Amino acid sequence: MKVKLKSIESSIVAPQGFLSAGVFCDIKRLGTGKGSNKGKKRDLALIVSKAPAAVAGLFTTNQICAAPVKVCAQRVKNGMARAIVVNSGNANACTGRQGMKDSLEMTSLVAERLHLPPEQVLVGSTGRIGVNMPMDNVRAGIEEVAQLLGNDPSHADEAAEAIMTSDTQPKKIAVEFKLGGKTVRIGGICKGAGMIQPGMSPTGARPASLPQGLHATMLCFLTTDASIEPKALQAALTEAVANSFNRITVDGDMSTNDTVLVLANGLAGNSKFKVQSSKFKVFQSALNHVCLELARMIVRDGEGVHRVVTVRVAGAKTIQDADAAARAVANSALVKTSWHGGDPNWGRIIDALGYSAATVIEDRVDIGYSSPGSSKILYSLKRGQPTKATFKELCAATAPKEFDLHINLNLGKAIAIMYAADLTEAYVDYNKGDVTDPTTLGG
Amino acid sequence: MKVKLKSIESSIVAPQGFLSAGVFCDIKRLGTGKGSNKGKKRDLALIVSKAPAAVAGLFTTNQICAAPVKVCAQRVKNGMARAIVVNSGNANACTGRQGMKDSLEMTSLVAERLHLPPEQVLVGSTGRIGVNMPMDNVRAGIEEVAQLLGNDPSHADEAAEAIMTSDTQPKKIAVEFKLGGKTVRIGGICKGAGMIQPGMSPTGARPASLPQGLHATMLCFLTTDASIEPKALQAALTEAVANSFNRITVDGDMSTNDTVLVLANGLAGNSKFKVQSSKFKVFQSALNHVCLELARMIVRDGEGVHRVVTVRVAGAKTIQDADAAARAVANSALVKTSWHGGDPNWGRIIDALGYSAATVIEDRVDIGYSSPGSSKILYSLKRGQPTKATFKELCAATAPKEFDLHINLNLGKAIAIMYAADLTEAYVDYNKGDVTDPTTLGG
Repeated sequence: MKVKLKSIESSIVAPQGFLSAGVFCDIKRLGTGKGSNKGKKRDLALIVSKAPAAVAGLFTTNQICAAPVKVCAQRVKNGMARAIVVNSGNANACTGRQGMKDSLEMTSLVAERLHLPPEQVLVGSTGRIGVNMPMDNVRAGIEEVAQLLGNDPSHADEAAEAIMTSDTQPKKIAVEFKLGGKTVRIGGICKGAGMIQPGMSPTGARPASLPQGLHATMLCFLTTDASIEPKALQAALTEAVANSFNRITVDGDMSTNDTVLVLANGLAGNSKFKVQSSKFKVFQSALNHVCLELARMIVRDGEGVHRVVTVRVAGAKTIQDADAAARAVANSALVKTSWHGGDPNWGRIIDALGYSAATVIEDRVDIGYSSPGSSKILYSLKRGQPTKATFKELCAATAPKEFDLHINLNLGKAIAIMYAADLTEAYVDYNKGDVTDPTTLGG
Repeated sequence: MKVKLKSIESSIVAPQGFLSAGVFCDIKRLGTGKGSNKGKKRDLALIVSKAPAAVAGLFTTNQICAAPVKVCAQRVKNGMARAIVVNSGNANACTGRQGMKDSLEMTSLVAERLHLPPEQVLVGSTGRIGVNMPMDNVRAGIEEVAQLLGNDPSHADEAAEAIMTSDTQPKKIAVEFKLGGKTVRIGGICKGAGMIQPGMSPTGARPASLPQGLHATMLCFLTTDASIEPKALQAALTEAVANSFNRITVDGDMSTNDTVLVLANGLAGNSKFKVQSSKFKVFQSALNHVCLELARMIVRDGEGVHRVVTVRVAGAKTIQDADAAARAVANSALVKTSWHGGDPNWGRIIDALGYSAATVIEDRVDIGYSSPGSSKILYSLKRGQPTKATFKELCAATAPKEFDLHINLNLGKAIAIMYAADLTEAYVDYNKGDVTDPTTLGG
């Protein structure tokens, strides 16, 4: 379903009744002083709904799962939430009982400050693994951020900045659309950069059908003034994430902290709707758009990423085959380095297809390129045979910063898409670590 | 079983009755002239047994499988072979009917020249994918190489050089041992470098238990003067490869051409032995050693490799779990870049364990380091908790060019080993392709 969406400003505070703020409280203990934000990137964000809100969430299926993820997965089951506190600089992962205590304290502090039930406060963290939270700094930060809440665009921008780690820029979006005659808004912010190949489920449990993915933490926080029941909200979010955040890969590594949360406070005043109703489909379509745009921003701003490639597999025997084929290509070191060089190497692509779990027959495989979203495909391989396209023509097709890679296995009707990135020297350099800095031990 | 092995010279011509040679015939069409080897790396090798020989082989399980692999997989079933012709510079993969015709012609030319039945000649290729073989050059090369056969160490070295692609050095070994009172020798040469994570089976078909691996082409050619039946030889080779070539990874990409072949001509004069007899176990032990040494040479000389890490997983619930855990760690981009930096980052390792298909429980996991083969382990993590080992101590453990990474899941008794490499800027730079060189299209 195509829905007319209007892009608007203010991301997470664009929907009615939402407030946010972001502060610097030195969670990395850089030593620039508690609560000071002079010249330092913010590292603590707070998002609040003035009215009771339905909540839905999806969480990493990594078995090593951070304390904040465990807290959220439990609390989202209640169906209602009012606030989300998020820090960057420390993932609060692999931190044992103290980590769980710290996550719970973060929610309690927000609850006290805002006079909310603690179980309606959610928490997200991203950053180093295996280091306990600097709770003195966090406490001071929560005190400060709660005082600064507001709904100016700048308040949303502060939150978007505060959740960044290796991201080079904040990621935000907001759209407005009509739902049963009412004006409804959805806003969102997210962060990514490295350890990015999410495979999230509503409970964090691993369904058989989820990719055994490989992911940087990605966090996404969505707000809407739509009136929607928690069950319908969860159904819509699960669908939207399946086609966006769960279809991206930067480096194939799945994080301990991946989280997507949405709050829906109903202040738009639309009448409630059921799953699969026509109104639901309008809402779904808008949410899909918001999630996909945010997900693609994560790939574009991935660590060291120079080129973004949409891998489109068609003609697979099964959905599982389509997914396996797309992920094998999207995560192949040799394919990714060839993209970096702008090299239209089809040998590495068909090699990756061949070792994937998908059924592949050499003389059926088509491989081609197009501009993003275009159906005008320049094929390098048709039914396993090189076409007459010249090397120069193919190089021109893989030279742009973004292009689509079309693979048709010609064995069935199943399709899958992966939003992928190249592998660059800059990625290696960024991630090779700094043996002079012990704070990187778990990061 | 420990068998006393003596290292000897001459690799594949060390066993009695084997001849070899290597020539340059310009398979990459560098334009330096047919048959000339002046200043150019050799690119065509021939290995011949003077006496009838039992043969066994293992082949890539990639569904996109090169013509020479198809020819060998078929012919090895006969149990007997006399010669192997191998070229580098062109993989003869994705070359359709012409590719198959060319592989068969290569074997026929050797057969004619040496007066052998063509079905007793095997063929291997490595290099560019999707480009037809320059058969004029190959024909001239076969003519020349057949005239140069000999059993001096230099003849073996020529063959070892001729099978190299991005390898920086030839890889060779030979050992001598006693078998039922007779002196038996095994020799071998191999090549690797990139697209390395073999998952080979005796037929090239994919058993459920094989890793859905990810591999440069690796080729390995073994010779022995042991007297052994083809079935026993295949059993011994399958076992040796399972614990060597199928346990290595450079970049996680599985090639279309991976091949291991062994010829056993019986000239040592030992009495024949059955599978699982004590003599078989002696032979197995020697073959294991040869294959593991050669496999580790491939990892050490992998594209851009600076550090080699042996990933030892213990305490897994099942063998499949142990394998999945070891491969997830060995192929994680974030773990591999941290190795490159000499950074003892355990957060990335436990993250990779958590997203692997293996069952992992956070507060059971031990992670530590030792010198290669040593049992003196410095733990960074015990039962999910950081130990008192200092960052400096841990950095010292991960600073050497080679070290062992010990992971204990503490959930069972299954173990697995992967011989892995770091991911470096040099790997990316080497593989990003050259858009000014159309000959790299399938490579």
